[in-house]
Amino acid sequence: MELYDTVIIGGGPAGLSAGIYAARAQLKLVLLEKLAPGGQIAVTELVENYPGFPDGVMGAELASQMEAQARKFALPIESAEVRSVTVEGDIKIVKTDKAEYRARTLIVASGTNPRRLGIPGEMKYLGRGVSTCATCDAPLYRGRTVAVVGGGDSAIQEALFIAKFVDKCYVIHRRDELRAQKILQDRALAEPKIEFVWNSTVPRIVGDEGVTEVRVTNKLTGDESGLTVDGVFIFVGLLPNIDFLDGMIEADEKGFLLADQNMETNIPGIYAAGDVRSKILRQVATAVSDGATAAFDLEKHLD
Amino acid sequence: MELYDTVIIGGGPAGLSAGIYAARAQLKLVLLEKLAPGGQIAVTELVENYPGFPDGVMGAELASQMEAQARKFALPIESAEVRSVTVEGDIKIVKTDKAEYRARTLIVASGTNPRRLGIPGEMKYLGRGVSTCATCDAPLYRGRTVAVVGGGDSAIQEALFIAKFVDKCYVIHRRDELRAQKILQDRALAEPKIEFVWNSTVPRIVGDEGVTEVRVTNKLTGDESGLTVDGVFIFVGLLPNIDFLDGMIEADEKGFLLADQNMETNIPGIYAAGDVRSKILRQVATAVSDGATAAFDLEKHLD
Repeated sequence: MELYDTVIIGGGPAGLSAGIYAARAQLKLVLLEKLAPGGQIAVTELVENYPGFPDGVMGAELASQMEAQARKFALPIESAEVRSVTVEGDIKIVKTDKAEYRARTLIVASGTNPRRLGIPGEMKYLGRGVSTCATCDAPLYRGRTVAVVGGGDSAIQEALFIAKFVDKCYVIHRRDELRAQKILQDRALAEPKIEFVWNSTVPRIVGDEGVTEVRVTNKLTGDESGLTVDGVFIFVGLLPNIDFLDGMIEADEKGFLLADQNMETNIPGIYAAGDVRSKILRQVATAVSDGATAAFDLEKHLD
Repeated sequence: MELYDTVIIGGGPAGLSAGIYAARAQLKLVLLEKLAPGGQIAVTELVENYPGFPDGVMGAELASQMEAQARKFALPIESAEVRSVTVEGDIKIVKTDKAEYRARTLIVASGTNPRRLGIPGEMKYLGRGVSTCATCDAPLYRGRTVAVVGGGDSAIQEALFIAKFVDKCYVIHRRDELRAQKILQDRALAEPKIEFVWNSTVPRIVGDEGVTEVRVTNKLTGDESGLTVDGVFIFVGLLPNIDFLDGMIEADEKGFLLADQNMETNIPGIYAAGDVRSKILRQVATAVSDGATAAFDLEKHLD
């Protein structure tokens, strides 16, 4: 069986950047991606702060540019979902739904998935009124009323995007102030279509064929009430995609993978890059750096 | 006197990225740059591996795009050379050739300068046959013969660029193999205008009005000989721009600043970002990440 210099798991900015660097360095490698390359940016409307694009760049466009750049350096990209990773001596074995790969090093750039609230109605109406992707679904709610749950950067960014389409957007947040960056807060507070519902949690989502109401509990009074809505967008954080690792790599208390400054994890030759890694800032700018650094550092294992 | 949230020293990719993030977060800040913004990329011909540009991007163009993006978020950029940094309690005081700034945090993104060989003729002919910038000077040697001293990535990258103009380019390297990435090595070895001079050092550069000869010592035999050249390009490494810090920040054995994963140095509220930081990979991709991370992390000092 072929022995790869490296296998990259995940085709978002971190994986593609690792692929650009490793393919340009003429390593023998493959990138595995279960969906289309691009990761989270493929479903991001506008990336405003990746340096080099003064007017911002559409997320899907940036994803396709990065993919084109990787393919120009002849990066092989295979469509496959990783099921497990095991280690035999110095060799890493990656099993997907289709095949098995043996490699001397491994870059885990598998990204994150949206965290769920775990409340009644959430899964029942997912795709029928409940969404975790404004870019995908906001245009479906033109002229209607929706609720956003969350108060961080992505919640507020998405609420601002949703407000372009809907007539009214509630933002339900469990505290009395936002965690989002000030520039996003200011924009949201100035947007007349957005109405904040502070100090509140969501005990359940109610509907018939689709969503009709979101229930809201005021944390200060304990009172429960209902808001009539056509859709609910949930942005309450991210969970790292690490199931296939079965706990083999050291992680922080939220499950994000711990790595050193060169992106190497506790297992020699296994790297973590991008949003799946434990770090303070998850952005395209930090993802591409993680990927490039991992691809560069792993060469020490190949000598 | 005004108290800034942060002062950014240096306008290369790390400083501009920090500026984009900090200005977008509506911090009170200023970026100080002694030359034009852009740093090393402003004198780099083509940046091939910054993710997002499938056909590569001219260094000067990328620099100007980053500057435009920073200015769009209203980043103030001042032309000034930093002379000293001191700390009074929680306040950082930055003195330039023109003014003094007081800030709650500081991002040092001052980059690097080319290392010198320290041989006779080097400084005498600097700008008259001796160069450390192929982008700047290679077109002046169209149809002539030059020597490159060095064997790392930048030496080989620059030699390949120089070969587009000159008739012949010697590459003088002290070892019998290159340290440069394999893709660059392969290209250089395949370039007929490039001739390698292995196991050799340069004891002095000889000339009259300009450079006429580079002296070469073979390390294996001890023999000294001369190569007739019209110019000498020196690429033997980088020195961090840290003089103005007067040793106040912990550094590695080469003088590059030590920082944690959030880019903070041993002095709380002082950050290091970009090429001046101790790290394994100095690239645009890693610089922008350093800058963004520093700008994000410093907000914890502002509460």
